Amino acid sequence: MRQVYINGGYLPETEAKISVFDRGFLFGDAVYEVTYVIDRKLVDYQGHMTRLRRSLGEIDMSLPMTDADLLAVHRELVELNNIDEGLVYLEITRGAADRDFIFPDASVSNTVVLFTQKKSLMNAPAATRGLKVLTVEDQRWARCDIKTVQLLYPSLAKTRGKAQGADDIWFQRDGYVTEGSSNNAYIVSGEGKIITHEKNNDILHGITRNAVMDTVADLELDFEERPFLVTEAMEAAEAFSTSSSGLVTPVVSIDGKQIGDAKPGPVSKRLRQKYIEGIRKRAI
Amino acid sequence: MRQVYINGGYLPETEAKISVFDRGFLFGDAVYEVTYVIDRKLVDYQGHMTRLRRSLGEIDMSLPMTDADLLAVHRELVELNNIDEGLVYLEITRGAADRDFIFPDASVSNTVVLFTQKKSLMNAPAATRGLKVLTVEDQRWARCDIKTVQLLYPSLAKTRGKAQGADDIWFQRDGYVTEGSSNNAYIVSGEGKIITHEKNNDILHGITRNAVMDTVADLELDFEERPFLVTEAMEAAEAFSTSSSGLVTPVVSIDGKQIGDAKPGPVSKRLRQKYIEGIRKRAI
Repeated sequence: MRQVYINGGYLPETEAKISVFDRGFLFGDAVYEVTYVIDRKLVDYQGHMTRLRRSLGEIDMSLPMTDADLLAVHRELVELNNIDEGLVYLEITRGAADRDFIFPDASVSNTVVLFTQKKSLMNAPAATRGLKVLTVEDQRWARCDIKTVQLLYPSLAKTRGKAQGADDIWFQRDGYVTEGSSNNAYIVSGEGKIITHEKNNDILHGITRNAVMDTVADLELDFEERPFLVTEAMEAAEAFSTSSSGLVTPVVSIDGKQIGDAKPGPVSKRLRQKYIEGIRKRAI
Repeated sequence: MRQVYINGGYLPETEAKISVFDRGFLFGDAVYEVTYVIDRKLVDYQGHMTRLRRSLGEIDMSLPMTDADLLAVHRELVELNNIDEGLVYLEITRGAADRDFIFPDASVSNTVVLFTQKKSLMNAPAATRGLKVLTVEDQRWARCDIKTVQLLYPSLAKTRGKAQGADDIWFQRDGYVTEGSSNNAYIVSGEGKIITHEKNNDILHGITRNAVMDTVADLELDFEERPFLVTEAMEAAEAFSTSSSGLVTPVVSIDGKQIGDAKPGPVSKRLRQKYIEGIRKRAI
């Protein structure tokens, strides 16, 4: 049975429970990270920890463990659960206290939960088939750069999109694509320019996005960081998304409009390949 | 020790736990209600249940219990915990399932949690002293009419406001007040007109707001439902907020500007008194 880490101990998943008074449960008062595991190693771990510290800081929290201890928990869970390939999920909440909008005082300890998921991401069918994407209005809050567990809308939108035959949704604000349900969104113009939303409060600053943009630079590909229109995306040569759990995944249709020749495009495929080569080397 | 209801049973609060895989904990995928208890009776209970059904429906869920059973749990908790005056908190989540943005299938049961809090609301000091309020940018999502547990921003804003000496915060969008951290916001103009934001997706459709607006109509007071500017509020004769846990509470300063003579005004006091008279009669 899968082992879960909670506040210093490891428990079987069926016994892994938190208080109903936990602020992660009552207020969405928690942040998270998801780290990709390949060959039993952690991919871009330091990037995830840097973003975690930033998320915590933005909501007036700080990391309740040392870096070394947190890394050790990640590694222990990977071993305990035999994760050759998959994900480590980490959530830190403000802790459990009698319900009050005002944050509890410093005597209340944060809740720290980590669990793993076995998943074959390298050989995901979506990579060869490509994703069908629907665009929906971005109704999320104004701080999508903070990785909080307030994920109801992305979850609802993706589920409703799936019911309409889509694999994922892309959010749009005023006609401009911000990002996907849990990934960053890109198009490739007819001239081969890679275009993706700049890093501001409207999007999550993807760890995979950072690595892919490094790859783009290494390959000396042309790119531009700016919002792009849904209409522009529909006329693009290619489209793709990036995330820890999707790596680089081609998008082959947007709102029913076929992108390129409705197959994963050469730029998307090349970036995916290069990204995968890179992570095997970088993983710790 | 306080007893908590979880999924059909009653447990001491220290044993009241939910799975770390609960979607209320991982995705903010849950809605809630808070019902005021006076004389061991529930205030405006049917209103709360009507809103709960609406919230559930808006996120593609439905009530997992009968009306009669849910009412029985409210009453049982009030008795078990000797709540002469206080609150009953109810949360319904989409249930526990392995983490996935896509909603789990119908075989996954909702999680239902209820607990109580003893609180003296009738004689809260804020009612006689009045609240000092700060306005902050409304950064919440576009569906504030759905009572989800995604409350990090209201909680953060209220806590930061408190650190600046305020009792509460009022949200503003483009200079217009939407509502308070967990209450609806009102002003009274120099001509005695009560002004509050109309019910749309920008505000919670307060159960107390409904009852207070009924009282306003009964008293034949002049009123208007529209957004009002922060600048307009600062020049108002009176201001107040309403909620299940605050009833009708006068506001005596906004962003450091004294409202009226910096004491609870006659309209606010009269509405609070009439509202309190009404709830004692309506409570079931």
